[in-house]
Amino acid sequence: MNPQKVVETTFHVRYAETDQMGIVHHSSYAIWLEEGRSEWMRVNGSSYAEFEANGLRLAVSELNIRFQRAALYDQRVTIRCWIDTVHSRQVQFSYEVIDAANGAILATGYSKHICLDTQNAVARIPDQWRAILAKAAAGTNR
Amino acid sequence: MNPQKVVETTFHVRYAETDQMGIVHHSSYAIWLEEGRSEWMRVNGSSYAEFEANGLRLAVSELNIRFQRAALYDQRVTIRCWIDTVHSRQVQFSYEVIDAANGAILATGYSKHICLDTQNAVARIPDQWRAILAKAAAGTNR
Amino acid sequence: MNPQKVVETTFHVRYAETDQMGIVHHSSYAIWLEEGRSEWMRVNGSSYAEFEANGLRLAVSELNIRFQRAALYDQRVTIRCWIDTVHSRQVQFSYEVIDAANGAILATGYSKHICLDTQNAVARIPDQWRAILAKAAAGTNR
Amino acid sequence: MNPQKVVETTFHVRYAETDQMGIVHHSSYAIWLEEGRSEWMRVNGSSYAEFEANGLRLAVSELNIRFQRAALYDQRVTIRCWIDTVHSRQVQFSYEVIDAANGAILATGYSKHICLDTQNAVARIPDQWRAILAKAAAGTNR
Repeated sequence: MNPQKVVETTFHVRYAETDQMGIVHHSSYAIWLEEGRSEWMRVNGSSYAEFEANGLRLAVSELNIRFQRAALYDQRVTIRCWIDTVHSRQVQFSYEVIDAANGAILATGYSKHICLDTQNAVARIPDQWRAILAKAAAGTNR
Repeated sequence: MNPQKVVETTFHVRYAETDQMGIVHHSSYAIWLEEGRSEWMRVNGSSYAEFEANGLRLAVSELNIRFQRAALYDQRVTIRCWIDTVHSRQVQFSYEVIDAANGAILATGYSKHICLDTQNAVARIPDQWRAILAKAAAGTNR
Repeated sequence: MNPQKVVETTFHVRYAETDQMGIVHHSSYAIWLEEGRSEWMRVNGSSYAEFEANGLRLAVSELNIRFQRAALYDQRVTIRCWIDTVHSRQVQFSYEVIDAANGAILATGYSKHICLDTQNAVARIPDQWRAILAKAAAGTNR
Repeated sequence: MNPQKVVETTFHVRYAETDQMGIVHHSSYAIWLEEGRSEWMRVNGSSYAEFEANGLRLAVSELNIRFQRAALYDQRVTIRCWIDTVHSRQVQFSYEVIDAANGAILATGYSKHICLDTQNAVARIPDQWRAILAKAAAGTNR
């Protein structure tokens, strides 16, 4: 089965995600991007919960977000998530946060992840997972 | 050593804790009360981190908060935390959230906790811990 | 149109909502219940965003949650939300958080809200809103 | 008065900030860095609350965080915050998150901010504020 290159997930902005500026607080985007990754993994055949059940975790080693337009309470936002690059021990995801109503880009970002074992030592991404990730990354050309 | 009955911890309201109403979002208080419990345990001789290192956890079984006055960004708030009751498998903490500048009560609350082991089975609170908790609860009369 | 008495909304547990106990942190439920209220308002004809646009807000005056079973990352949870009572200046919502897969109750709760105007003075709930709320509350018998 | 170039603030890691990986969730760092900025403004003579009271806000336009070592519950962390560059409408802060016990770097990051007025239009940073910021940035050489 070919993995789905770009995975989208859509939800309402929660009230608690706003701040006194009247817009969504920037820290909420870190959580949204992660939810984009979770959906990516569900869609591509293996949830991240399974990955962790195998004693591995993809720890975030770098996070970058550029904010272009404010998101508002009750708005529907779509997270678009895809894989940029896969290495033996690392993987990079990229993201767009868009207004689900009109497709306007609210933010873009990427996150780098390093594979750790239960002892928190850097570990190789298991072949099965790496194959899924690499196949998804190949030719991603959103 | 006698445990300190009522333990206080004070900190600034964080910007991310506000919402578009311009005040602190009510869910932040749940986190503040927990920080009050953490401080209680630090002060009374054993951090909660140690408790968990022994394979036990105090899971929250009930949370109640009454909100009286809004808290604002940058304000200094004090969490006052004490133990109401201790049973073999349960403990109840009570709280006041006050304005550190003038002592005005912003919120009051309580939380009930049940002791769980690593299998998530209900467990007796270890004697050593229960002794600390019971001593702290006895005669609490803030 | 008759309001829908019990409104449900379902979503995945987010990774960031877990804590080191391996389960959803209890403060996340406060946010979930609020999302249940937001859905209630969307379904019953008026989003809370509109309510605030009119210069009013329903401030939380009390929150109570009883936790029965742990929620886990990636699990689908359903928030069921309905109105218990409506007064001229106050309204109480009740909630169930259930496992979407099997209907098991994870938590129950209620929240009391007081209507405030832009000056943070207690205000009457506007007739139009109160009519919606009262109609929804009448005969709620989930 | 000379502004303090590098401002530090220290606090305990909160339990709610951890995730099921047993470490602090990466989104918490976004909130910590912001708390570093808040402290920077308190120390250098004007709280961010005042800034907003004047109808201006520094909206985050970019956030970057590199995670080097995990932070743990109950650990004391110090946020070091300083200004990198100041422009007429923008300012960039940089940060280190360090283990307060031994000075080990847990994470580094920067955030770019753009000045917005109450209509969300890009605005010049007021001269008084810009002077404070520029003086603080000049010769920062931590």
